[in-house]
Amino acid sequence: MLKTLDDVIERIKAAKRVLVIGHIKPDGDAISSVATMMGILRKMGKVVEGCIDDEIPWFYKSIPGVSEIKNVEQLRSYEYDTSITVDASEISRIGASVELLKDKKPDITLDHHKTNVGFGEIDFYDHRYAAVAEIVYEMAKKMGVEYDPDLAEVNLLGIATDTGFFKYSNVDAKVFRYASELVENGANIQHIASVVLEHRTIKEFKLFSAMIDTLKVEENGKLAWAYVSAEMLKSHNCTDEDVRGFVGELRSIYGVEVAILFTEWPEKQVNISFRSKDYVDVSEIAVEFGGGGHARASGCSRKNVDLSEMMKSVIEKSRDVLKKYEAISNLS
Amino acid sequence: MLKTLDDVIERIKAAKRVLVIGHIKPDGDAISSVATMMGILRKMGKVVEGCIDDEIPWFYKSIPGVSEIKNVEQLRSYEYDTSITVDASEISRIGASVELLKDKKPDITLDHHKTNVGFGEIDFYDHRYAAVAEIVYEMAKKMGVEYDPDLAEVNLLGIATDTGFFKYSNVDAKVFRYASELVENGANIQHIASVVLEHRTIKEFKLFSAMIDTLKVEENGKLAWAYVSAEMLKSHNCTDEDVRGFVGELRSIYGVEVAILFTEWPEKQVNISFRSKDYVDVSEIAVEFGGGGHARASGCSRKNVDLSEMMKSVIEKSRDVLKKYEAISNLS
Repeated sequence: MLKTLDDVIERIKAAKRVLVIGHIKPDGDAISSVATMMGILRKMGKVVEGCIDDEIPWFYKSIPGVSEIKNVEQLRSYEYDTSITVDASEISRIGASVELLKDKKPDITLDHHKTNVGFGEIDFYDHRYAAVAEIVYEMAKKMGVEYDPDLAEVNLLGIATDTGFFKYSNVDAKVFRYASELVENGANIQHIASVVLEHRTIKEFKLFSAMIDTLKVEENGKLAWAYVSAEMLKSHNCTDEDVRGFVGELRSIYGVEVAILFTEWPEKQVNISFRSKDYVDVSEIAVEFGGGGHARASGCSRKNVDLSEMMKSVIEKSRDVLKKYEAISNLS
Repeated sequence: MLKTLDDVIERIKAAKRVLVIGHIKPDGDAISSVATMMGILRKMGKVVEGCIDDEIPWFYKSIPGVSEIKNVEQLRSYEYDTSITVDASEISRIGASVELLKDKKPDITLDHHKTNVGFGEIDFYDHRYAAVAEIVYEMAKKMGVEYDPDLAEVNLLGIATDTGFFKYSNVDAKVFRYASELVENGANIQHIASVVLEHRTIKEFKLFSAMIDTLKVEENGKLAWAYVSAEMLKSHNCTDEDVRGFVGELRSIYGVEVAILFTEWPEKQVNISFRSKDYVDVSEIAVEFGGGGHARASGCSRKNVDLSEMMKSVIEKSRDVLKKYEAISNLS
């Protein structure tokens, strides 16, 4: 049930033993939100564990607190009185962590996705927050939790990654103000940027070249799409982990409004990432294919499909959505 | 002579007609600082012109105020009582704009380079500022100038570009605080990022792929180098403008400490860019070949040379410098 942040705080204050859960395929915000909640709750004297049912990309582990997040197996016997999910818009996003909930709803859910369905006892979601890490920080401020440099740094991680390092349209004055406060408290943004962005591999560059060979730009240069097939991944000795960031590169092409990357991994499963630059709400396309996300970044995934057929129908839909938005902008 | 920001303000208040000058090969901070000074001074009721003796990269012109900056020819007959240079560490950096000074020192210089030599009547320079645009903003605040969204946006441009969009080690709490205030006043960071960063071209991607094909990584993965020959540029219908950013990509490879990009353009002229990640002062390598720069970013250029011979001797020197720094770090 949708509640206020003050309701969340009241519930948290009553907690003694907490389980914080992030989503599968964890990104910087999910990881940051779990680890930051853990740090905050410990400072409040509570017992806390954090769980993510998926591998945490290795490079995040040099951010303080991240390596303390556990997996489902490690927490089977953990007893808690309060469960909190972060950055998950629906229960399926937490994967096998759901088993730790033992058929109960999460006590608290914190989220910033437009597509949030409200699946906890106390839900707080508001898509105007750039990151869940921002909600977590605001909560900590309200509760008067004192930050040290490690806590400040892991908290800033989520704000930085979910805003594309302060470049996306979700950056408002508050995002920069919170970043300023976290740096004041000892967070090092250059360290975060180096950890998250400077670990590319040569095989990744070669895969990028192969992806660029598939690039098509149409609709007067406004729609760009490319693919990475399972075969391409295998021949470059890569996995779908290695395509992170590729879709952002496609969007960075001059004149492109909508960028789409199709990744087949494993075979016959197609994962699709959508990005837009200025005016198209790409979550509309993702929702059509069973996915979700934000206006400028969304995604979906389909199993047992043929890559080229999937591409055909998604591109067709994308053309329609792009045209709809162009018609709107011509009217106004 | 080195003075305080209050001295600068006092001098500015006395001005009636002002000339603001940026440096040649203008970057985001120079352009931002000139255009922002122009906006501030106009709000103070002064007559003002801005001058840069070089072409302003086309994409910056969609930031408000930038297209009002003029060149030397357009300002020959402009009469002023106060001249201000921004982001120039010495007089040679303003190019032919020096002619507009008519053998006089600039009345005011504002800068943040460590290498500043102090060449004006009133000099304010302090390398702790991430950008001159930050100095300009601080001055405007002290003078109580009211910002509108256009002025806020062009001011934020310089802060954003000189901090690598809030990723470099020069980002402190103040940088984020000023960014927050400028966004509060209507600056749109997503627009700035899109204008400055999202104008890549497909031929640039293809050239990047070709560059990656030349990539070599040696010295236990610490030294990465690649080249772009004049022939490669021609066959991709590109110029040396299109390799901007390539060397940063090389540095972003995991484990790489020193990254080198050799660009032959025009034929038989080799331009070399050096970047380092953590501990090697690459200006040492550049200086050896007649160039210069900073510890983490430097460069040099040689005419009438053979690309492969040039590469051989530069890489040899780079290995030596890298080894020297490794020996130092092993000792400490």
